[in-house]
Amino acid sequence: MTALPDRIRVVEVGPRDGLQNEAVHVPTDRKVRLVEALGDVGLSAIEMTAFVHPRWIPQMADASEVATTVRRRPGVRYSALVPNVKGYAAAAAADVPVVAVFMSATETHSRRNLNKGIDEAIEALREVTLAAQADGREVRAYLSVVFGCPYEGEVAPTATLAIAKRLASMGIGELSLGDTTGMANPTQVRRLVSALREEVSGLSLAGHFHDTRGTALANTYAAMLEGLEVFDASVGGLGGCPYAPGASGNLSTNDLVAMLEGMGIATGVDRDGLLEVTRWICQDVLGVSIPSREATAELARRAKAARVAAERA
Amino acid sequence: MTALPDRIRVVEVGPRDGLQNEAVHVPTDRKVRLVEALGDVGLSAIEMTAFVHPRWIPQMADASEVATTVRRRPGVRYSALVPNVKGYAAAAAADVPVVAVFMSATETHSRRNLNKGIDEAIEALREVTLAAQADGREVRAYLSVVFGCPYEGEVAPTATLAIAKRLASMGIGELSLGDTTGMANPTQVRRLVSALREEVSGLSLAGHFHDTRGTALANTYAAMLEGLEVFDASVGGLGGCPYAPGASGNLSTNDLVAMLEGMGIATGVDRDGLLEVTRWICQDVLGVSIPSREATAELARRAKAARVAAERA
Repeated sequence: MTALPDRIRVVEVGPRDGLQNEAVHVPTDRKVRLVEALGDVGLSAIEMTAFVHPRWIPQMADASEVATTVRRRPGVRYSALVPNVKGYAAAAAADVPVVAVFMSATETHSRRNLNKGIDEAIEALREVTLAAQADGREVRAYLSVVFGCPYEGEVAPTATLAIAKRLASMGIGELSLGDTTGMANPTQVRRLVSALREEVSGLSLAGHFHDTRGTALANTYAAMLEGLEVFDASVGGLGGCPYAPGASGNLSTNDLVAMLEGMGIATGVDRDGLLEVTRWICQDVLGVSIPSREATAELARRAKAARVAAERA
Repeated sequence: MTALPDRIRVVEVGPRDGLQNEAVHVPTDRKVRLVEALGDVGLSAIEMTAFVHPRWIPQMADASEVATTVRRRPGVRYSALVPNVKGYAAAAAADVPVVAVFMSATETHSRRNLNKGIDEAIEALREVTLAAQADGREVRAYLSVVFGCPYEGEVAPTATLAIAKRLASMGIGELSLGDTTGMANPTQVRRLVSALREEVSGLSLAGHFHDTRGTALANTYAAMLEGLEVFDASVGGLGGCPYAPGASGNLSTNDLVAMLEGMGIATGVDRDGLLEVTRWICQDVLGVSIPSREATAELARRAKAARVAAERA
């Protein structure tokens, strides 16, 4: 059997990717508390916010305040999403150590989402990267629709390989492979990851899987079998499917951590603490039902155990 | 990379395992129509009903009528669950070709669920098996809580190995490995399946995974890497988590078939037809929201595409 990693780095994207599509406005102090609580339960990489124009994502209008107010824990990699040099200037002013940039693997998705073709998107991303590097900041890139595109269907690995080589040559540290609409399967994941590891050097790879069709953990396992050791996930599974309100989106940190810890792979995350943060942000702050299967099952199991204990008392 | 099978046999358990816990009484003609529709969309193994005492499972009180009314398609393996020789006599009278028996992998789960210890359960199961074999019927066995037990925690592979050897020596054809409360992980699955394949011969193995914690497809993929070619699933994901009302239970046939077909593994199932059966049984007949992630996402995707088309018209 292929050797699995001993330890996985979970990149918590909930405060940014999870909250950005939420209809409920979340007050700044709650966002700060969420980031701090996620660090307290052991997440060692946390995306705090996005420095985007509030017209695009009103929920992220308080990016600077969030990033500067969070009490930062030593050893945690804090990042923020940045779309352009203007956003980068704000992120730098807030002293964000890791800058996350983003683009799409297909021309159509790129034009529909960023209003730019791939070449133009890479140029914008290069500007941010150069500025960040000049300031000694790390850069992480999100690549969307790497496995399947809602407009172009299945995406060939060659498309991603070509983009990955261009990003690697810029000195980008980490590339997060996004299955944006949950269309990937384990065979596809292994094929792409092994090609990337063979043909593109000097680039740390991360898996960013969506559970839209229930495949997020299968794809995670497949990626681990090809050596991936970094996975993005969102507390409680916040961050819905982009084209289907009510359908699932981001892999939940809860499901990911539970599976990994069950397999004897360390994540550093305290599961009880994570469950409490999940319950608080979903139920108390947002008033939504928890998308995570593991968290839902665990809360139901505990409620039942409490009922049984009360009946016996 | 380990070779994957070209073809998977999906055992559709929805009409039995999916409906048995539903509060809504389903009229007999709808159950018959469900079994027939599942055959029509290409499922080649279908569990029709359970010949159990109606005091246990009121929903299955019409087992004989369902089994005798279904218009059977050539080439489809129809089964029914049978707890004892009395149930077997009724199943035989209804000419059910495959008899499904069941027991637990742990002593506590066995006593709590069947009111019998493991040894006593095996004896009851042997009686049914001998009767079925004398009549030339195939026997399939479900073994519950193979990976984790809500009472005993993680279950050692040795427990399952010992039971599997006893079942194999009886001439049981297929053993379905049940992750009844969704506690398994891919490492555990590979360890158990490889041990069973090595130490127990003459027994076809099936995976019966629950998506309670989002791991069902990861476990399916892990099992395929160890050579498993038969998986149980329930249309729409019907059949909730036994200890958590509202939480997920059975892996949905929809999620399973979508992943497999995406990987180039044939299932024989028409996905559009399956989606329509899923919508009908969940929404029209039961009035429940669809547990399957893939079916939910696909229906949402289609609804959105229809809205966009209508706006353009």
